[in-house]
Amino acid sequence: MKGRIHNFNPGPAALPLPVLEEIQAEFLNFKGSGMSITEVSHRSKSFDEVIEDAAARVKRLLKLDDSFHVVFLQGGASFQFCMVPMNLLPDGQHADYVNTGTWATKAINEARIQGKTVNVAASSEDRNFSYIPRQISFMPGGAYVHITSNNTIKGTRWATFPDTAGVPLISDMSSDIMSKPFDPSPFGLIYAGAQKNLGPAGATVVIIRQDMLERVPQHLPAMLKYTSFVEKNSMFNTPPCFAIYMIQLVLKWLEETIGGLENMEIINRQKADLVYQAIDKSEFYTGTAEKESRSLMNVTFRLPSESLEKEFVKQAAENGMAGLKGHRSVGGCRASIYNSTPMEAVKALVDYMDEFARKSG
Amino acid sequence: MKGRIHNFNPGPAALPLPVLEEIQAEFLNFKGSGMSITEVSHRSKSFDEVIEDAAARVKRLLKLDDSFHVVFLQGGASFQFCMVPMNLLPDGQHADYVNTGTWATKAINEARIQGKTVNVAASSEDRNFSYIPRQISFMPGGAYVHITSNNTIKGTRWATFPDTAGVPLISDMSSDIMSKPFDPSPFGLIYAGAQKNLGPAGATVVIIRQDMLERVPQHLPAMLKYTSFVEKNSMFNTPPCFAIYMIQLVLKWLEETIGGLENMEIINRQKADLVYQAIDKSEFYTGTAEKESRSLMNVTFRLPSESLEKEFVKQAAENGMAGLKGHRSVGGCRASIYNSTPMEAVKALVDYMDEFARKSG
Repeated sequence: MKGRIHNFNPGPAALPLPVLEEIQAEFLNFKGSGMSITEVSHRSKSFDEVIEDAAARVKRLLKLDDSFHVVFLQGGASFQFCMVPMNLLPDGQHADYVNTGTWATKAINEARIQGKTVNVAASSEDRNFSYIPRQISFMPGGAYVHITSNNTIKGTRWATFPDTAGVPLISDMSSDIMSKPFDPSPFGLIYAGAQKNLGPAGATVVIIRQDMLERVPQHLPAMLKYTSFVEKNSMFNTPPCFAIYMIQLVLKWLEETIGGLENMEIINRQKADLVYQAIDKSEFYTGTAEKESRSLMNVTFRLPSESLEKEFVKQAAENGMAGLKGHRSVGGCRASIYNSTPMEAVKALVDYMDEFARKSG
Repeated sequence: MKGRIHNFNPGPAALPLPVLEEIQAEFLNFKGSGMSITEVSHRSKSFDEVIEDAAARVKRLLKLDDSFHVVFLQGGASFQFCMVPMNLLPDGQHADYVNTGTWATKAINEARIQGKTVNVAASSEDRNFSYIPRQISFMPGGAYVHITSNNTIKGTRWATFPDTAGVPLISDMSSDIMSKPFDPSPFGLIYAGAQKNLGPAGATVVIIRQDMLERVPQHLPAMLKYTSFVEKNSMFNTPPCFAIYMIQLVLKWLEETIGGLENMEIINRQKADLVYQAIDKSEFYTGTAEKESRSLMNVTFRLPSESLEKEFVKQAAENGMAGLKGHRSVGGCRASIYNSTPMEAVKALVDYMDEFARKSG
């Protein structure tokens, strides 16, 4: 569409153009209500249909059975770093965490600051978090195992989830939820900030298994308890209506236009393969993640020098490609290619990479 | 505008039509970025301008000096019920709360569930919260005094704020912030869910005075500490970008189209006077709030019978007026007439009220 650029931002990130167009078209009058979606009561029938449909689509897309609840919270994954141990890690017990980078480290810190006992069962810090650990030492009797399914900053992901021998798995899936099918049965809880694969910033999807709710302590403040949100169907208080509405439309696009997570994974693999091939065939680009741990969502790479990296990002912007700078904590370059990033954008990026290497190499 | 109705919802509520139109116009391409506002990085220059401008407008409109910080959080006022005592009420001290209705009661409960000591310095529960107490027994040495400046459900408001003899005043101003000027100097903290006078659901404005930050305990989870948000200028983690953007535009409308809070108050008084006059001149309608405590934002009233109330709401909807049902906990009728409700909507309501009374009375 005229004036639109190719968006490789790590989050908030690209969203499907048909979804944006639908929102724009009905922004002054949502479903004939005579009000904007931003003005509609969260207690209205029309909003109820939105939130019910969004939750139902999460359940269908992820093939969740009725033991799972889907709720929409606020505060992003960072708030979940605090809520998970507060609700699900009883005093006197421990939880296992696998440290695969910045966000996993934060999750560990937020449990420890509450005085909770964390066993770091594995870490890839020894090689700057460039891989997913294969040797994991779970401490028996843990309350849960916490992982970060995809590491946005380091460009790694769990290709297969660890076997926890029945201990509930908990995952921050902010940056790869809905990117591929997986078996949800080992998971006690999954959380994801919306602003990568689901919608805009401002909502967090939390999927929680019924048996986990029994652990929630009675005497927590209401807004810090998962049970408050499950019992009131995400409406313990006014939810972030616009963000949930947009998530609903993105999920509808994923189900009805893409055709579900099996198709989404095929497309995501094709997109990632294109970028990794551009890296691997050249002497100019170097991928920073070890090959078997490479993320399909965030492709991290270096150029021969920092000044070339700076030039690469600058010229990309001049050519209508945004968001290619690596995270400020690690430097380098990064192309985030979430579900909504079209193949056309990836092709444009790869052409640009080839051209830039040829000119500068 | 064609197809739009008169919206008297209590929140989410009516928003200024020019703001909605501006958002719609640039929804696919925010300020020439080539991206939707929902796709723009929160670390970008263009979003930085949004959040800086929004905070600056809050400061200008409320005439806050540099001792006040303005930050944007998530979780609504309900989350502040928990954060306020957690951050600002040290163990071994007490805080005074004035109980003026449903939300004030919740704020008290959320402090007590943390084991904090609350002195209920006054309550209007004896007459179903239909007034703001004048006799208030503050307990000396309190950490703060908590009030609810406007009671959305009961239709009452503090016409003047209580004299706390230097103890910091804290107010939930969710339903009347920006409706009139006031002296901010007695306030240690002000919070407001956006979805009434500020914008869409999904953001909370928190105004906190510098000296209050010194009370924040070190060992709280990061997302539960005011200092996390103040130190990172609301960007400790990804903020609710769309909601903040919309708040910025509503504040711009308030400053540049309305002309500030002095003008806003005049308009709000005119609107409220019209509805209260319609009530007071009739035998048919009965206001539920005592006159000197009447809210300018939420006008609560009863009809002679519940069946007439039901009919009143139903026929109003048929005549393009939404949201007139009272809160499910109290029944009756309620017209919420926030800043963005145009005079034209209020006039249509008053005409309808007169007509309905004439037909049914």
